[in-house]
Amino acid sequence: MTRTDDLELLRQRHADLVARDLRLDLTRGKPSPDQLRLSEHLDGILAGDYHGADGTDLRNYGGTTAGIRELGSWLMDVPSADVHAGNNASLELMWHVVALHHLFGVDGPESAWQHRDAPKVLCPVPGYDRHFSVTERMGVEMVRVPMGPDGPDMDVVEEMVRRDQDVVAMWCVPKYSNPTGVVYSDEVVDRIARLGTIAGPHFRVLWDNAYAVHDLTDTPEALASVRAACSRHDTLDSVVQFASTSKITFAGSGVAFVGASEANLAALRHHLSLVTIGPDKINQQRHVTFLPDRPTLVDHMAQHATILRPRFELVAEALESELDPDGAHGTWTTPAGGYFVSFWSQPGLASEIVSLAAEAGVALTPAGAAFPYREDPEDSHIRLAPSFPSIDDLTLAMEVFTTCVRLATARAEAR
Amino acid sequence: MTRTDDLELLRQRHADLVARDLRLDLTRGKPSPDQLRLSEHLDGILAGDYHGADGTDLRNYGGTTAGIRELGSWLMDVPSADVHAGNNASLELMWHVVALHHLFGVDGPESAWQHRDAPKVLCPVPGYDRHFSVTERMGVEMVRVPMGPDGPDMDVVEEMVRRDQDVVAMWCVPKYSNPTGVVYSDEVVDRIARLGTIAGPHFRVLWDNAYAVHDLTDTPEALASVRAACSRHDTLDSVVQFASTSKITFAGSGVAFVGASEANLAALRHHLSLVTIGPDKINQQRHVTFLPDRPTLVDHMAQHATILRPRFELVAEALESELDPDGAHGTWTTPAGGYFVSFWSQPGLASEIVSLAAEAGVALTPAGAAFPYREDPEDSHIRLAPSFPSIDDLTLAMEVFTTCVRLATARAEAR
Repeated sequence: MTRTDDLELLRQRHADLVARDLRLDLTRGKPSPDQLRLSEHLDGILAGDYHGADGTDLRNYGGTTAGIRELGSWLMDVPSADVHAGNNASLELMWHVVALHHLFGVDGPESAWQHRDAPKVLCPVPGYDRHFSVTERMGVEMVRVPMGPDGPDMDVVEEMVRRDQDVVAMWCVPKYSNPTGVVYSDEVVDRIARLGTIAGPHFRVLWDNAYAVHDLTDTPEALASVRAACSRHDTLDSVVQFASTSKITFAGSGVAFVGASEANLAALRHHLSLVTIGPDKINQQRHVTFLPDRPTLVDHMAQHATILRPRFELVAEALESELDPDGAHGTWTTPAGGYFVSFWSQPGLASEIVSLAAEAGVALTPAGAAFPYREDPEDSHIRLAPSFPSIDDLTLAMEVFTTCVRLATARAEAR
Repeated sequence: MTRTDDLELLRQRHADLVARDLRLDLTRGKPSPDQLRLSEHLDGILAGDYHGADGTDLRNYGGTTAGIRELGSWLMDVPSADVHAGNNASLELMWHVVALHHLFGVDGPESAWQHRDAPKVLCPVPGYDRHFSVTERMGVEMVRVPMGPDGPDMDVVEEMVRRDQDVVAMWCVPKYSNPTGVVYSDEVVDRIARLGTIAGPHFRVLWDNAYAVHDLTDTPEALASVRAACSRHDTLDSVVQFASTSKITFAGSGVAFVGASEANLAALRHHLSLVTIGPDKINQQRHVTFLPDRPTLVDHMAQHATILRPRFELVAEALESELDPDGAHGTWTTPAGGYFVSFWSQPGLASEIVSLAAEAGVALTPAGAAFPYREDPEDSHIRLAPSFPSIDDLTLAMEVFTTCVRLATARAEAR
């Protein structure tokens, strides 16, 4: 029980940590140098051969990179014919997909979301801040939907979609969700695929499968195929999938993918043909050469897991050993994959904990960042990103974090 | 004189060419394999060192690539502080700059061009089709401006800008203009920089200096610095510059740049921070390593010129030897740089010539492609792109082209 926490003792512990003048960062899901080293052969892997398997001169304009769509198909669990391969950032592809639907219209100008009275996008929370910043920039209203342990609350989602035809989209990170680590259950995936039967023809689920192969254990949780579910419900146009190799090879120099129906891909490709000359085919070819088949990908991801697992174990152990097991300090996730741990403090304390940690030299993602408009109504959620720091730094950072949680909780109880 | 052209003889010559079942392509400004080979060391050039000169780990998220802005500064003749370095396609940066100004507003939502009654963009013609397709997609009206031998007709431009405050922008390819090869004179550059003194605060000249260092001769024509001119007229915000290494290193796998004032760059960087995680820093570093200083760049471009020059000479010789020197078949340019030759047939014949060439297996850019809405009011202009074919193929293609020009002219005279 926190009642036993001595406020003065915690204040002293925090002051001691502040005095150590630490500079630690748990803000973003960055791969560590050890992980990046796994892909160090990418530059130069072509060994002077700039031609694709079909003979395309990849140095020049035009054509596509034979084989790159297969890599996308393994990540998104769709046929390679349903894949578009782009440049380095899946966020940019999301931007263009949202712009296509909101500003230009996927099915002619009249179909643009902006012509609705009050278009809105459902945002399971906590979620990924960059999804929200794209949506906010477009001027589309964001509506929070609660996340449960097996995905978004589908009773709420279905009710919203049924009641309001201006609900035009929903963001999803279906596997090891950012930041909760939740894997959507088979039932949730099926119900999401069924949304297309109650929503209008231009409703889209924006299915960002960023952590599709980013398991931490040897017995990964399986994600049901949303495409198969859409096939069953005849709603293939209602879901647009995204993936990338940003946390497989090099963050910022990977290859990003869209997976979508024939009609959606045709509209997107037409749009992109106006936006850009085309993706960097040479970098796509590096990835074809580096990850030529599924077993190579699986083996590569197992090496990532070996590096990441101790960090997630360390976070779990620090939280378990330092905080009240009955939830008096808060609750947290112990994800089986992905890049984040979610922590929920007692209501109203998240901003204070983040501030206390900053005083002690530990940068955390700003409280509220995982919510639309940066507003956590409970001021409770904090996202921890343990992938980048060394084990020693992470140990220190967690000492700071748990101290700040306990101090903030004790101060609240004393108020 | 064309009167001496025997229509039947030309018909027979064309039929003979059709029978040869050629497959030749003069449509796009693609570098030839020999040119691409000049940069073949790019892949692998990092030799395993993925760190920038300032220590940044270029494999990870965040940070910038030290030195890459210098490359942009040499191309655009601006201080490196005025440069943003992006991914592979300058067209994509143009898209985002136009979207920022038209849809979102460079200076807050109220400043967006879309809020004008009838926003319009001035398009010197003939011009670059991809500029026009971006503008058309945005739904901004395009207004043709005549090109002269030293740039756009500035009397017309100034009059339009003065008369109509809804003129929000003008496209320019100031050096070896696509497709005429014109280099803007010092006076034109100065008058363009002065437009900002008569236009509103959100008027922008979109200055696509795609062929900044793409000279064919050892005595290149100098382009006056538009930035220096803007400094003189206190109009630095009125011009946004673009450049890329697409025709320096690898088409489709180069680095693209924006050059702009501090205020413009700040607005663009904010916008791009919502659109994407960031550019491919590793590929930027390849370019920093490959083109570390200005003399290396100059030497590299001289090698391109050595490969390109015979092709442009061949086109000029074919036109001079096969067509009427007094213009009875049309007129053409003999550019000192860039990637294109412009040909103007007798009015009303361009589409016919392109069709005749297609019948004989020579693909030309569709007539009208160099005009807004693909409409050449004279049906006269044809763009020739001689860079890609081999010398033998180009010789054949020009035989086809001049035959088609003569045949179409003779048919018109016989009508």
